[in-house]
Amino acid sequence: MGDGKVNLPAALARITDYWTPHTVAAINDYDVKVVRFSGEFAWHTHSHTDELFLVVRGGCRIELRGREVTLTEGELYVVPRGVEHRPVADEEAEVVLIEPRGTVNTGD
Amino acid sequence: MGDGKVNLPAALARITDYWTPHTVAAINDYDVKVVRFSGEFAWHTHSHTDELFLVVRGGCRIELRGREVTLTEGELYVVPRGVEHRPVADEEAEVVLIEPRGTVNTGD
Repeated sequence: MGDGKVNLPAALARITDYWTPHTVAAINDYDVKVVRFSGEFAWHTHSHTDELFLVVRGGCRIELRGREVTLTEGELYVVPRGVEHRPVADEEAEVVLIEPRGTVNTGD
Repeated sequence: MGDGKVNLPAALARITDYWTPHTVAAINDYDVKVVRFSGEFAWHTHSHTDELFLVVRGGCRIELRGREVTLTEGELYVVPRGVEHRPVADEEAEVVLIEPRGTVNTGD
């Protein structure tokens, strides 16, 4: 990593906990985070920001009230600000999150 | 795509031109773009913003003055604002770019 690049599979392989985002890079005041999903997270809402989910390995669902978006490797979805959502991984998912610095993963 | 998700390999497969970013999603006022690289782009600088490059398939180099960062599948690099750079793909690369809306790919 001496040259400043990030290998996403390697960064994800170093993570041993679930649901804890680890910041690996920044674009201005946005953080790029890697996180492992397994099971169900809590329903939550970000009132002031969109949130990008990109699946690097495995698969997950982004549950929204009344519908859900299923994501597999190479797929991304942006949860619009103000939309209640819950990530769920029946198996496991390795995910990239991008959102403004200081965004709390459990929402408001 | 009716559910709003983006399949990156599929989006990239629809592109027939090189070096032309195609916006596929947005995070607030940041655009997520897909682009195919082949050959050398022009040296340029973005004075006011960082720029993220993530390689989805293939490989490329981000040349900087005096050094370069080599990226292969699953690797990302953020070019800091104000740093002159030139993307080069000796073969071909399928890339995701993330930067603020309105950023011009040839720089200032």
